[in-house]
Amino acid sequence: MYQAKIYITLRQSVLDPQGSAVTRSLHAMGYENIKDVRVGRYLVVEVDAAGREAAEEQVHDMCKKLLANPVIEDYTFELVEV
Amino acid sequence: MYQAKIYITLRQSVLDPQGSAVTRSLHAMGYENIKDVRVGRYLVVEVDAAGREAAEEQVHDMCKKLLANPVIEDYTFELVEV
Repeated sequence: MYQAKIYITLRQSVLDPQGSAVTRSLHAMGYENIKDVRVGRYLVVEVDAAGREAAEEQVHDMCKKLLANPVIEDYTFELVEV
Repeated sequence: MYQAKIYITLRQSVLDPQGSAVTRSLHAMGYENIKDVRVGRYLVVEVDAAGREAAEEQVHDMCKKLLANPVIEDYTFELVEV
């Protein structure tokens, strides 16, 4: 069994209105030294695969087909055996 | 300047309907070997702090007050100098 920790972020060229809203909220709370906030998703997926390579390939597949939007998002992941 | 990578997840005891929906979608797509999915948030925050300790303390503060909901969520973060 493998656990994939998947980090999905908007591409740098894509505007992040949620991140801008968080930045403004933090400034309003007095944290003026916050320069930028980007908001993404963090998924933890348990994959029952035969081996590491099979698990990696499947996670790439699932990211491209469902979990991330490759037009505007990038993803990275770490795989650990559990 | 420090960059904080913040991972916010629902506590294990809290139901994750979004994760369950993703699990069902993956099963429907043929990925029957997915045992569990938990969905969280991933934030990248640029903090202009004087030192590492000040930055760490501020990130803890911001997580508790705004970024995470400590009643139902856990957070962890990594801090790198940039």
